[in-house]
Amino acid sequence: MWKGFDVIPAPYLLYLGSSQDPLSIKTARGVAHWRPEKCVGERRLSADAQSLGLANLSYGEAVARGARTMLIGVANRGGVMTEGDVAEVLAAIAAGLDVASGLHQRLRDNKDIAQAAARHGRKLYDVRDPAPNLPVGNGEKRAGYRLLTVGTDCSVGKMYTSLALERELKGRNVRCDFRATGQTGIMIDGAGVPVDAVVADFISGSVEQLSPARSDGGWDIIEGQGSLYHPSYAGVSLGLLHGAQPDALVICDEPGRAHMRGLPGRVLPSLEDTIRVNLEAARLTNPNVVVVGVAFNTSGLPRAAADRLCAETSDRTGLPVQDPVAHGVSLIVDRMLECFASSRRAASAGR
Amino acid sequence: MWKGFDVIPAPYLLYLGSSQDPLSIKTARGVAHWRPEKCVGERRLSADAQSLGLANLSYGEAVARGARTMLIGVANRGGVMTEGDVAEVLAAIAAGLDVASGLHQRLRDNKDIAQAAARHGRKLYDVRDPAPNLPVGNGEKRAGYRLLTVGTDCSVGKMYTSLALERELKGRNVRCDFRATGQTGIMIDGAGVPVDAVVADFISGSVEQLSPARSDGGWDIIEGQGSLYHPSYAGVSLGLLHGAQPDALVICDEPGRAHMRGLPGRVLPSLEDTIRVNLEAARLTNPNVVVVGVAFNTSGLPRAAADRLCAETSDRTGLPVQDPVAHGVSLIVDRMLECFASSRRAASAGR
Repeated sequence: MWKGFDVIPAPYLLYLGSSQDPLSIKTARGVAHWRPEKCVGERRLSADAQSLGLANLSYGEAVARGARTMLIGVANRGGVMTEGDVAEVLAAIAAGLDVASGLHQRLRDNKDIAQAAARHGRKLYDVRDPAPNLPVGNGEKRAGYRLLTVGTDCSVGKMYTSLALERELKGRNVRCDFRATGQTGIMIDGAGVPVDAVVADFISGSVEQLSPARSDGGWDIIEGQGSLYHPSYAGVSLGLLHGAQPDALVICDEPGRAHMRGLPGRVLPSLEDTIRVNLEAARLTNPNVVVVGVAFNTSGLPRAAADRLCAETSDRTGLPVQDPVAHGVSLIVDRMLECFASSRRAASAGR
Repeated sequence: MWKGFDVIPAPYLLYLGSSQDPLSIKTARGVAHWRPEKCVGERRLSADAQSLGLANLSYGEAVARGARTMLIGVANRGGVMTEGDVAEVLAAIAAGLDVASGLHQRLRDNKDIAQAAARHGRKLYDVRDPAPNLPVGNGEKRAGYRLLTVGTDCSVGKMYTSLALERELKGRNVRCDFRATGQTGIMIDGAGVPVDAVVADFISGSVEQLSPARSDGGWDIIEGQGSLYHPSYAGVSLGLLHGAQPDALVICDEPGRAHMRGLPGRVLPSLEDTIRVNLEAARLTNPNVVVVGVAFNTSGLPRAAADRLCAETSDRTGLPVQDPVAHGVSLIVDRMLECFASSRRAASAGR
């Protein structure tokens, strides 16, 4: 098993602080949505703060209900903790909780927090830190099945799609594991590699380590990052693609997006170009790679228009096309399992 | 001008230690070959150690002849300094020299060396350290002309070809600058970015910073790294390609190499595939990119066979094909200047 990053001990208390902005608690919401069984409650500091609808617990109550780690699932301006946040972290540690954070500012770099953790024997998890001693990738074919989500752009739903695929597969009793490659995914799953924070020489190697050989007939569902068409991050995307050596790709896109994320004036690539370029690059480490579906984020479209667009795109490409939020991913999973029928028989053995 | 990495002060004393193996002084030999005007001498510790044929100087003599920095241009086993090496570094610092090293073990991590440098007011240059606060790439077209060497594989002559192009261009009074992206190139040029050591998110941004906008009509000759076909390092190569946004590519290859560097059993891509894939990827940040030549490392072939291969490859591809060591790069530079004739006129203004 992968040991590059310790698994964050569950269950969790989700720290929301005094956040007023729904967007600022995106990570905590993701954890509550995708791993509700791991969340014993939330910690809000004021009555008007954002809530996830969980029980608002003191640290003592959280520990009494079995919580082992407080997740700092908020994104403050600049990714730094306020003095109030630090005081809360210290109280959580004193109450017996480990603490995990996806903030840019590392927990371990705050002297008070580091000393308190040492004194109380608690662990700190800075999920933006890649594991030490990552290997260089070797491109050798590993045992097992892998699916990777790739995108026309950043932030088009690769993580959501990956988690929806994992949930659908588990619902069908197909063995599978979500493999997180970004901070939010790592907070949701409790483990993973922050691939954009890895030193360049080790991008593909870090993903080889994240998704090691498996011989149970099950699938690794690997979260993609960036896009081969994004001039800021394509190197990350290519190393991730090579290291993942996917058997199956799902293409993620947001139809109608005006320009590439953060780059006004730069249009998104077509779905067809995205498919062609990702397949060609992926063949370097897995010549048998296939595309098994398209996941659209259609949140900006009226439902009827979205449904029509999915149907038309499916007719044009011959692929199942769904919005994971609006439609789920059952057709994509049908196609994936059809393409890899032998794996389906081997893996139909509970999760 | 680029300020990401301080320029190592020349002239240099080249430290060779007691190296017995010609390969271990490859970096020092590169500096002596490409920047002879910057080298006042060498420092050997025994009569039977490898020599570059320069004057063997004491530290006092080196300082008297104007040396400002001692370059540790040797690669020891494991990339670490022996106790003897450390003692020599301390003596060099005491004599008034800065010290630059491409070793994996950082100078600054040796307490004695760090303290001596502080005490004597000398600077330490660990060229494997990327600059802090690198920007994220933006892919916006910058002013000026850029050439990038790309390869079928690692270690096929991209650095040598880049430096040969720089020398040929300067010989023709075309303004240009070599832009180093690896440790040896940085030691040779005194500046650059170790792109394989950059955090993944900043690969293309670091190259945008390395090769900023220029409006003198001259060229940046950017050293390539890795290969889009190398499963360990392709992410580095793609980020470098996007950040470089080259106008011109030179394709580097070693005909007859049995397998990809470090990966027995994995064959090299064809020249045609390498050209096609690099052009397609490069068009993301420079739609007008062209290939202006092929540089073969034919050191493993008899000269007549090498000449025939170059001629045949040139006929097949329509490109000038030369071995920079055996033939120079004049035909490649001819083609480059033909393709960008307006720049030639603008830049014919001395170096």
